[in-house]
Amino acid sequence: MNTRQIVLAERPKGAPTTDTFRFETTTLPPLQPGEVLLQGKYYSVDPYMRGRMNDRRSYIAPFRMDQPMEGAVVAEVLQSKSDRLSTGDLVTGMLPWREKMVVKAVGLLKTDTSLAPASYYLGLLGIPGLTAYFGMMDIGKPKAGETVVISGAAGAVGLVAGQIGKIHGCRVIGIAGSDKKTDILVDEFGFDGAINYKTTKDMRKAVAELCPDGVDIYFDNVGGDISDAVISNINFHGRIPLCGQIALYNAQGIPTGPRMYPVLLTRSVLLQGFIIRNFPDRFPEGIKQLSAWLKEGKMKFTETIVEGFDQIPQALLGLFTGENTGKMVVKA
Amino acid sequence: MNTRQIVLAERPKGAPTTDTFRFETTTLPPLQPGEVLLQGKYYSVDPYMRGRMNDRRSYIAPFRMDQPMEGAVVAEVLQSKSDRLSTGDLVTGMLPWREKMVVKAVGLLKTDTSLAPASYYLGLLGIPGLTAYFGMMDIGKPKAGETVVISGAAGAVGLVAGQIGKIHGCRVIGIAGSDKKTDILVDEFGFDGAINYKTTKDMRKAVAELCPDGVDIYFDNVGGDISDAVISNINFHGRIPLCGQIALYNAQGIPTGPRMYPVLLTRSVLLQGFIIRNFPDRFPEGIKQLSAWLKEGKMKFTETIVEGFDQIPQALLGLFTGENTGKMVVKA
Repeated sequence: MNTRQIVLAERPKGAPTTDTFRFETTTLPPLQPGEVLLQGKYYSVDPYMRGRMNDRRSYIAPFRMDQPMEGAVVAEVLQSKSDRLSTGDLVTGMLPWREKMVVKAVGLLKTDTSLAPASYYLGLLGIPGLTAYFGMMDIGKPKAGETVVISGAAGAVGLVAGQIGKIHGCRVIGIAGSDKKTDILVDEFGFDGAINYKTTKDMRKAVAELCPDGVDIYFDNVGGDISDAVISNINFHGRIPLCGQIALYNAQGIPTGPRMYPVLLTRSVLLQGFIIRNFPDRFPEGIKQLSAWLKEGKMKFTETIVEGFDQIPQALLGLFTGENTGKMVVKA
Repeated sequence: MNTRQIVLAERPKGAPTTDTFRFETTTLPPLQPGEVLLQGKYYSVDPYMRGRMNDRRSYIAPFRMDQPMEGAVVAEVLQSKSDRLSTGDLVTGMLPWREKMVVKAVGLLKTDTSLAPASYYLGLLGIPGLTAYFGMMDIGKPKAGETVVISGAAGAVGLVAGQIGKIHGCRVIGIAGSDKKTDILVDEFGFDGAINYKTTKDMRKAVAELCPDGVDIYFDNVGGDISDAVISNINFHGRIPLCGQIALYNAQGIPTGPRMYPVLLTRSVLLQGFIIRNFPDRFPEGIKQLSAWLKEGKMKFTETIVEGFDQIPQALLGLFTGENTGKMVVKA
């Protein structure tokens, strides 16, 4: 059986382009015992994928040249030679960017659509939601009355992190890149305020005005100038879950900026880089709590859904130009 | 009774100079109940004092213009109107830079010279030693076989932090500013290696060579380029007790440097700014453990002792040009 796949055609210098990827047709092997044939339904594109395009040691192995890209995918079982799964089941896993695929059933998570729509397993109940959950609960540790600032607030992680702050009784301020996004944060997701960094001249002052008691938790998805402005306003005993640095991912070489360490020192600030792999045994806890908040109406989620397997590369590139609100997902 | 005092004459821009200070004669008030008359014996000069010369919010109030400087002092009781202290007792406290002083007995720590020489209460058993103790034990958390790098290693805090690493079975590398100091670290204090940053062209490479398994704990007293080089070599789950930034204290404005946050992110690094005030109830624990290690011969300490009350300003300035090995103390 033939299927289409998307491979890494070149390692980008700076921002990736459509030339970074190549579409191919490949032949699937026959199904072996323990394996399933899957049809991809929803493909996740995420900022961390940029790091895997470099041939450089990181927390996750680089993508291989001329091999299919991979990421979180929700797929339907078309044929099964495994006792664990049956035709028609929906599953989530780290899977190649192929329209159809043959994989081992072990390692696939059965997708429980009674908890949330299937695509939410790429967002609220997937890597982004769990990232927000562990970053806020284990590093941020929000207390009622504190002030939380989220950069990249309208992205999948930011939306969840901000709402976790609200659930804990915090004042939550989001930073995003358009008026449409800042409006959504305040009007639909209950943020107490939001800043459009693209139209704000003095970010440091803007953060100070919206955070009159200073910043206790800075959940950072972005890095760069935005972080400098927030950290200038951080309180004594502030916490910084360091989750992403999307502003720097496409940089060539190491960008420079003000040295903020003296602020971190004199204000006894905790900064902790993290990835969800640091919390391997606690995914069920996170999924249970996030889906409970969803059912109770305390948590909302939103997606930007792009249609068509062909559109996966373009959707990924769109993350770096801020085209998504909430989770960017491609529906095949 | 008259005595001499040293007041803050101007707030320095950049590095302090002898013009920053002014010697005056002042008249002491008569002794009231609960007070003691003290004769200063040993005066501590410390890097953190530079921060207090700025008129800026920090973890400790700024020094006031035209008022006496203050710091940790070991003094002898000349007269007492307090039940707690008697003539001849030695005490340690945060005291003004006066040759003689009248102060409340409450808040003075009686100095137990059976544990260590009196001046050690400004060093090993004082703020520097306790700073090293809490930074290493509570943030660094050294495990046998790990690699520890200490910047400002030949200073009072660095010497103690490095030895705590050795006591826990770590490989310990020190960074200091002269061959004399790097020799002392290795020959007298048992460090496994040391780097003279003033004569080393490629610090990143030098750290990599002395730390073939990477850096697990970076105890940072210095900041700036030295920190960039060490952080480039930090391991997954590394810890950075952020203790001092002496390279930046005299800077005007905010210096720039490479943005190292992506490294902290992808390697899940913990960075924690701290001061010993964060551990208010645990000074007795720290003093007990440090003096026990001293008695057991597991811990050494060294001082640079400058003679004469007149020399206090010069001794303080010497900290920023690296003139001390170990604790800089002025003996009156």
